Amino acid sequence: MTTLQVPPVAVVGLGQLGGSLAAALVTAGRQVSGWDVDPAARDAAAARGVTLTQELSGVVVLAVPLPAMATALDGLTVDPDATITDLGSVKRPVLETVGAAFGTRFVGGHPMCGTERSGFEATDPGLFTGARWAVCLEPDTELPRWLRVAEVALAVGAEVVPVSAAEHDDAVAAISHVPHLLAAALAEAAADAGPLALALAAGSFASGTRVIGSDPAFVTAMVEANAGPTADALARVLAHLESPWPALVEGGNAVVTQETGRRDVRVPLERAALLAVGRAGGVITRRLASFLEGWVPEVG
Amino acid sequence: MTTLQVPPVAVVGLGQLGGSLAAALVTAGRQVSGWDVDPAARDAAAARGVTLTQELSGVVVLAVPLPAMATALDGLTVDPDATITDLGSVKRPVLETVGAAFGTRFVGGHPMCGTERSGFEATDPGLFTGARWAVCLEPDTELPRWLRVAEVALAVGAEVVPVSAAEHDDAVAAISHVPHLLAAALAEAAADAGPLALALAAGSFASGTRVIGSDPAFVTAMVEANAGPTADALARVLAHLESPWPALVEGGNAVVTQETGRRDVRVPLERAALLAVGRAGGVITRRLASFLEGWVPEVG
Repeated sequence: MTTLQVPPVAVVGLGQLGGSLAAALVTAGRQVSGWDVDPAARDAAAARGVTLTQELSGVVVLAVPLPAMATALDGLTVDPDATITDLGSVKRPVLETVGAAFGTRFVGGHPMCGTERSGFEATDPGLFTGARWAVCLEPDTELPRWLRVAEVALAVGAEVVPVSAAEHDDAVAAISHVPHLLAAALAEAAADAGPLALALAAGSFASGTRVIGSDPAFVTAMVEANAGPTADALARVLAHLESPWPALVEGGNAVVTQETGRRDVRVPLERAALLAVGRAGGVITRRLASFLEGWVPEVG
Repeated sequence: MTTLQVPPVAVVGLGQLGGSLAAALVTAGRQVSGWDVDPAARDAAAARGVTLTQELSGVVVLAVPLPAMATALDGLTVDPDATITDLGSVKRPVLETVGAAFGTRFVGGHPMCGTERSGFEATDPGLFTGARWAVCLEPDTELPRWLRVAEVALAVGAEVVPVSAAEHDDAVAAISHVPHLLAAALAEAAADAGPLALALAAGSFASGTRVIGSDPAFVTAMVEANAGPTADALARVLAHLESPWPALVEGGNAVVTQETGRRDVRVPLERAALLAVGRAGGVITRRLASFLEGWVPEVG
């Protein structure tokens, strides 16, 4: 059994997501460096064993808020052969900015985790365990670079969902961005109902509003960066709300209680086949890593 | 220090709520009996130390689904001086049926707890700890009977919210019934978006849809029994969804992150003053129990 040769990882932005990724890679015994404009975030990462450097190589992970994505590498040195990825919650705008700057060296990504907390104080090396991690495949994506990014996700315990930026943004509008807007409207309408309503609020209100406890600037940046798909997904929710209540309740219950069986399939390592896996609700699991032996060192 | 003389409690319906209440009262060292049409639920309660009997006295708690409320006591013997309460999630319809049958001996109640699980298998003696428990005060409510019901809620660790049935139903429409409908519509719209969307679904989708995992028959009975207030509350949510997203997000975040300071107040033990406490978002805490000494034994 040979050891998988893997490139170093450099994480730019050491808040909840970036700090957790760097810490998780340290735990996995990987070579990982990091940088953050905030000295306190750098100190917290260094205390977890992350090397601090402004010279980035290998897989460079942009773990900064969406509005900061285009300027995240300002003042830093990036190896000309580095593969660039990001953790942004919307993928089309990042492809248009960072992707335009780095061409086929850019592979977008989005781990489906994080909590309503933020900042380096919320660092959790176990954050990615069992999470889904979208890794984007565009028509011109270099597959070896895509594999490098997928391998990082697998290394911290995530499962990889191959997806195009456009399909990702449509999907997350439905399952992440609209829930934030519904949570906000639910909270505001309950406040309209008065202090008695808020005093009686319990589990269903707490669950239904949890995500709007997130930093409003972050949430607004996310929904505005994905305005079209979010508006479309919201319209579908509103249409369902016009159904007779018994059918609405029955239908919603059927979705959340359905059995999602899992079976192993082998697919050729090429773009169309990988995207078909993602579209079918499939994921790429840890076993890809052994398949990657001999692959990853050939690039970069 | 004298011991508070408290009446026995008889719980009719030993599913999640009733079974948990009976078990919690056993734990509190109280005299508690129970009954359920399902022998398996009776056996589970008996195993927790609940006496099984069809002869009910003291505080009789109807812990059955809303559609079964009017017939829950069929075939059972009820002491003519018993105080009747219930745990139903909607209060006007129960007041109209059970309240009509028992007159001023009926005091409606609603503990704001429970999970998406149901049935006696979901029994949890700690379910009420820290929960709010609405106890209804109507113009003709006998205050000593109201106190008996409030005392049962306090005995299992809940805080009591004095409220009229009408005000309760308006409030829970906003914080419980509408969240169930939003969860259903969110789940159905995500399913419309396809398997990829469901595969990427993570925390915000899970929280936003959690409550629609509940038994659909229970949820439908709840929203249909409170159709008017629920439709009004839903309309308020839809109105907020028309706000510009930055304002919507900011407003929702402000509601869920507001500090809810607590201060102690003393209020006269009379209906208007108690209802004013509830309307202001206040609760009655365990310390009322010492106040009840000498009070409770005088009635019933």
